[in-house]
Amino acid sequence: MHEFCGDVRVSGRKYEGVILDIDGVLKRGSKPILGAPETVNKLRELGLKVIFLSNLSTKSREEYVQTLRSIGINVWPEDLVLATSATADYVARHSKTRKVYVVGHEGLMKELRRAGLILVNDPEEAEFVVAGSPFDEKGFVTEENRWKFTGAIRAIMLANAKFVAVNPDKLFPGSDGKPIPGTGTFLGAIEAATGVKPLIIGKPSRLIYKVALDRLGTPPEKTIMVGDQIYTDILPAKELGLTTVLVLTGITRRDDLEKMDDVTKSKIDYVFNSVRALVKLVGGEKQC
Amino acid sequence: MHEFCGDVRVSGRKYEGVILDIDGVLKRGSKPILGAPETVNKLRELGLKVIFLSNLSTKSREEYVQTLRSIGINVWPEDLVLATSATADYVARHSKTRKVYVVGHEGLMKELRRAGLILVNDPEEAEFVVAGSPFDEKGFVTEENRWKFTGAIRAIMLANAKFVAVNPDKLFPGSDGKPIPGTGTFLGAIEAATGVKPLIIGKPSRLIYKVALDRLGTPPEKTIMVGDQIYTDILPAKELGLTTVLVLTGITRRDDLEKMDDVTKSKIDYVFNSVRALVKLVGGEKQC
Repeated sequence: MHEFCGDVRVSGRKYEGVILDIDGVLKRGSKPILGAPETVNKLRELGLKVIFLSNLSTKSREEYVQTLRSIGINVWPEDLVLATSATADYVARHSKTRKVYVVGHEGLMKELRRAGLILVNDPEEAEFVVAGSPFDEKGFVTEENRWKFTGAIRAIMLANAKFVAVNPDKLFPGSDGKPIPGTGTFLGAIEAATGVKPLIIGKPSRLIYKVALDRLGTPPEKTIMVGDQIYTDILPAKELGLTTVLVLTGITRRDDLEKMDDVTKSKIDYVFNSVRALVKLVGGEKQC
Repeated sequence: MHEFCGDVRVSGRKYEGVILDIDGVLKRGSKPILGAPETVNKLRELGLKVIFLSNLSTKSREEYVQTLRSIGINVWPEDLVLATSATADYVARHSKTRKVYVVGHEGLMKELRRAGLILVNDPEEAEFVVAGSPFDEKGFVTEENRWKFTGAIRAIMLANAKFVAVNPDKLFPGSDGKPIPGTGTFLGAIEAATGVKPLIIGKPSRLIYKVALDRLGTPPEKTIMVGDQIYTDILPAKELGLTTVLVLTGITRRDDLEKMDDVTKSKIDYVFNSVRALVKLVGGEKQC
């Protein structure tokens, strides 16, 4: 683990690709983190390929493009790897009948359709159950998901459908700052009813990182993962051989690092105060 | 374990009370099991106290009285111990502020109000979360339960509310004979989100049997439990010292008995083809 600002330690390694987590790295809520848009521009000027990664279960890439543009980062759908799109890619690759029973939001459904999958209403026709969150941003089960607990249970129990989940995230802060349930809470219900655990595609699963690496086309040893969480961002990226950068603009604070055990610490290659220091790591100007 | 019809073995014991499970013992769906109403009448004529037990999470005793009367069994609310009413009794006895946050149906809410509890809308005011099923008989999350996943999570996490569940039943057959989720499926969601397991009041918890014994006022050794399920009816009743009778008109078949291990078998005092044989056990005429 290297501290980067202050002393300069340049790895000498030539990087080709960067995967950037979004929340806590590039933005907090709807606001950009200072210097994030400029850093993305600079990385691109330096010739690096950049992919943006989010575990969000509710939006399609088309929708999420707007989120990043609104904070001054210019992206196209193909620059994004979302849990929704990575799940659609995975299921499309593994499906025979292309018939899926979906729990979740319109953004997930869009990605599944885009991948050529057929969304069925009758759970007993399904080859896959794809689970996102049935809850909206206020914590209500959405109108169209009111029967989806039953549908998912029937697809799994009666049609032996394979069970795939967009992410395992149990709780989020709602618009009032208090917890609201996410996909992981729904998964708990289905596991209780059926005894079946899903295959998770989103972070901390390595599957979403493999999709991101595929999209970049860069070898792991020449690719950097930048995130604000140890468990979901750093550990799986390190397992795949990426260089890992933890930034302190999100959920992990300097205090947390001090309490961390040495094995976990050893998975973090660099700790930066913010994403801006990345430019220095890849060989550009000093930007602490 | 004694087989009863054919050979006659009379225990010589003088029984004073009988707890009758309802589904699979007195009725199947909306139809009475042959001889059930007459058996109840005969038990009462012989001077036994009779309590009817159901794990149902959705109905109040007032509502459930109609169900039994419709199959020809004359009962009053005080003859019934339902998971809803037993839960209300338990919470009322243990509550300080009387404020409860309820997930479930109107029948449960009625029982809680009858027990003097105050149903709060703001989860952070709650001393108890009382969980029944948020699903209706078609498997939809009911309109009024759409926010209850969030509410239960907030009551537990933010107000440290105690978590009590009406029953742990995960699945039921829906009106189309296919599975629909029950309380236990909801509990799986809340446990996933909060890490907290509820105290279960309904079967197979012994708590509901204690409520039934209290209501009967008879000592366990002079009380019979009649049920159609080993795990929910026989085992907890035996633990409390009741005489246990398994009837073969419900979920357990003769085949299942043959596969059963000896320890489990030893918890069943009598196996009857139907509830009708009960009259012989308590000293009335032969009714195999």
